[in-house]
Amino acid sequence: MAIDRLLTRDGPDPSARFTESGAAGKDRSSVKTALEWLSERRDAHTFEVTRVPFDALEEWSFQPDTGDLVHRSGRFFTVEGRRVHSDYGMVPRWDQPIINQPEIGMLGFVVKEFDGVLHCLMQAKMEPGNVNVVQLSPTVQATRSNQKRVHRGSRVRYLEYFTDPGRSEVLVDVLQSEQGSWFLGKRNRNIVVETTEDVPPHDDYRWMTIGEIQELLRLDNMVNMDARTVLACMPFARPTGAASPGPHREFQAGLRRSMAPDEGSLHTMLSVLSWFTDATARHEVRAERIPLDRVEDWHRTADTISHTDERHFSIIGARVTAGSREVLNWTQPLLAPHGLGLAVLLVKNIGGVLHALLHARPEGGHPHGVELAPTVQCTPDNYRGLPDGHRPAFLDYVTGAPRERVRFDAVQSEEGGRFHHAECRYAVIEVEDGFPVEEPPGHRWLTVDQVTRLLRHGRYLNVQARSLVACLHGLW
Amino acid sequence: MAIDRLLTRDGPDPSARFTESGAAGKDRSSVKTALEWLSERRDAHTFEVTRVPFDALEEWSFQPDTGDLVHRSGRFFTVEGRRVHSDYGMVPRWDQPIINQPEIGMLGFVVKEFDGVLHCLMQAKMEPGNVNVVQLSPTVQATRSNQKRVHRGSRVRYLEYFTDPGRSEVLVDVLQSEQGSWFLGKRNRNIVVETTEDVPPHDDYRWMTIGEIQELLRLDNMVNMDARTVLACMPFARPTGAASPGPHREFQAGLRRSMAPDEGSLHTMLSVLSWFTDATARHEVRAERIPLDRVEDWHRTADTISHTDERHFSIIGARVTAGSREVLNWTQPLLAPHGLGLAVLLVKNIGGVLHALLHARPEGGHPHGVELAPTVQCTPDNYRGLPDGHRPAFLDYVTGAPRERVRFDAVQSEEGGRFHHAECRYAVIEVEDGFPVEEPPGHRWLTVDQVTRLLRHGRYLNVQARSLVACLHGLW
Repeated sequence: MAIDRLLTRDGPDPSARFTESGAAGKDRSSVKTALEWLSERRDAHTFEVTRVPFDALEEWSFQPDTGDLVHRSGRFFTVEGRRVHSDYGMVPRWDQPIINQPEIGMLGFVVKEFDGVLHCLMQAKMEPGNVNVVQLSPTVQATRSNQKRVHRGSRVRYLEYFTDPGRSEVLVDVLQSEQGSWFLGKRNRNIVVETTEDVPPHDDYRWMTIGEIQELLRLDNMVNMDARTVLACMPFARPTGAASPGPHREFQAGLRRSMAPDEGSLHTMLSVLSWFTDATARHEVRAERIPLDRVEDWHRTADTISHTDERHFSIIGARVTAGSREVLNWTQPLLAPHGLGLAVLLVKNIGGVLHALLHARPEGGHPHGVELAPTVQCTPDNYRGLPDGHRPAFLDYVTGAPRERVRFDAVQSEEGGRFHHAECRYAVIEVEDGFPVEEPPGHRWLTVDQVTRLLRHGRYLNVQARSLVACLHGLW
Repeated sequence: MAIDRLLTRDGPDPSARFTESGAAGKDRSSVKTALEWLSERRDAHTFEVTRVPFDALEEWSFQPDTGDLVHRSGRFFTVEGRRVHSDYGMVPRWDQPIINQPEIGMLGFVVKEFDGVLHCLMQAKMEPGNVNVVQLSPTVQATRSNQKRVHRGSRVRYLEYFTDPGRSEVLVDVLQSEQGSWFLGKRNRNIVVETTEDVPPHDDYRWMTIGEIQELLRLDNMVNMDARTVLACMPFARPTGAASPGPHREFQAGLRRSMAPDEGSLHTMLSVLSWFTDATARHEVRAERIPLDRVEDWHRTADTISHTDERHFSIIGARVTAGSREVLNWTQPLLAPHGLGLAVLLVKNIGGVLHALLHARPEGGHPHGVELAPTVQCTPDNYRGLPDGHRPAFLDYVTGAPRERVRFDAVQSEEGGRFHHAECRYAVIEVEDGFPVEEPPGHRWLTVDQVTRLLRHGRYLNVQARSLVACLHGLW
């Protein structure tokens, strides 16, 4: 190989092209057409999800010695027990069931320019846990087992654009975590590849601008978690032109400045990284695997594994019959959370630049300790009736925030392949001018650009924070 | 808090100051004085390390149900078993003992300007596993238990510069791993803080320029592993002025260009990150904890736990009597590797810019999969007599490399607090012009600047690669 010339170390920056796509297709008629298409795809297939007792799970069983819930092949995932010791928060030790899925999945967008604007090939995908069955998802959303066809199902459509050399250019490629309270160290490859080939069409797929997807994201349960996390990992350049007129003009101007690396920030990047290191080193979170049948405060019946207080979540069994999936009929366990989740990002204009308040939060399923979470992340039902000091920081502030400060508010679904009706209210709230800049322990104000830089790497932002970053990106 | 003005997001860049310190104190007389001081400190204390059988370990015992070797307090570390399944390499499954030390330790340099040049407060520190007992170490090298004085020993000297607000400015702060073959997920906080205070002197500490430390690094077993990894995490700006005349002028010029972010490189940063993501996602490394007494192919006697082939390493017991340590007399287990390790970085001038060949290597103790390792990292004794295809890539090339291509070559010690006489030969070899630029699977040519950028974050470079980066930094 002759080295005629070296490349510039940074390489071409796709962020201006992502921004351009984000500005396209935000009009009412584009959104209406996209919604109609999604609705049509929902109607085109038959789906049925019914709860079944554990002994009706066909290839799943409880291991005699541990009580762990495992697949006959030893693959996919297992439900096992975890004992967590933490010097953080009110509870120094707890047990819980947890989903162990060591495989790294792929969440991939194929993108392509049409008329000079990047479009994403989005899939109308059925997932058993979704309240509305079909949601907008990445082009490819596949576990390693899917990719290798352990399911004995059909091949994963469009996978070749990610695997075959020369068919695409990588624009984003990073491993990111999933829910640390439900998953043990689960990670997915968040990847965006651009192709210039003619991509064969399929009824369940549609080319959409990032602007169109962001508009759908403002509605409840339209864009699935896997699509949201990939969107969050896309870098966006500061939009050119003025912010749109209207009541949120000031907010938009601050958001745009927040996206620009050459504007100021409350903290330097080194200081942010140092604070993150300190938050990780300061707390001790140790977790060990325990047999599922030795998990304290949880009990198993014929059709559910639940906490004795009926809090947190249950493990249930489900039978799925579907007309548009690799395998047409299967049974599997699902994790069913109790209560609507809440994930809120407080944002504040500091010196003309919007900052978001992130929280360094340890979760038992993150073997590396903390990740950055939204300002508030909890299931409010779990805290009902508890005295003040036992509720998460800012929860009361958030529930009392006046409507006019809310910049984003929609209910979104978590991963429908593993979670049953797991919904969470995602909100961005701009605090009033008098809200303190001083940060309580474990919290830091970051600009959008700083968050974007962290998102080039895994293990910094958790999946709920990434969902909110995707929402925030749609607000300029 | 009034926000008078925001900070620039990048903050002040200390890299030119590190480079300036790296250029200072490289003369023969400085190095001679430093060596004399180190020798004097070695003589000033009494140290004795003797091997003892396990039942002579005072606060350590084998747990009856698992055979794990644990401390009575339940703290410090445990020696337990690990079963690793890997689709990488020749061996699909193996068992091994492993040190589980979930605490995050601190490896900290206090630095201060004297006559405008940064100096590091280095410690002459005794560690039981070192072949020569005392080596140059960071200002603070302490486990969390040390810091909290679980040892009931004396306080950790100079710790306050890292913990008390306002006494220093952070220049480097990142969590990095230790040996993934011997440690389970062990991480240390690599931190450099600058103070302007008068620092009280102590006989076992000495202010040294980075240049002085780098010169000592060229000698065998003078700079300990913990100091090397912190040195590696320091960013160095491209030195100003011409490379020194001499046979390595071309090498130095290429190295200097490699340190500059505005020079070219074989791969863009996005491509490097994408390759790393792919290497992690491509391979499946699963590991599970097993009881130490169920580790296959290993056996325990009264004074050793060893592999049946006498390969890899043994676990032994040691009694330490020391005159300059928090606790004066103690016993502890140590991991004693068999054979001299080898860690070699191949470097190549590509288009005028030096590139180093890194290897994405999975290790059982890294729960997140691969980290970047030197081109060659192994214990050659383990491969003696095996046929060609069973030896690590480039091992034969390295052992046959002519002397004039070797740019660095010294034997260094691994962590003397846990490892007994663990020595490794570290070398940097510049390949000949005809050496292929094409990379074999799992390898990539990176510039020094690209490596520096990765080192702002944890989990990219393993500890052996970081040692070699520290060595390479001393060669311009």
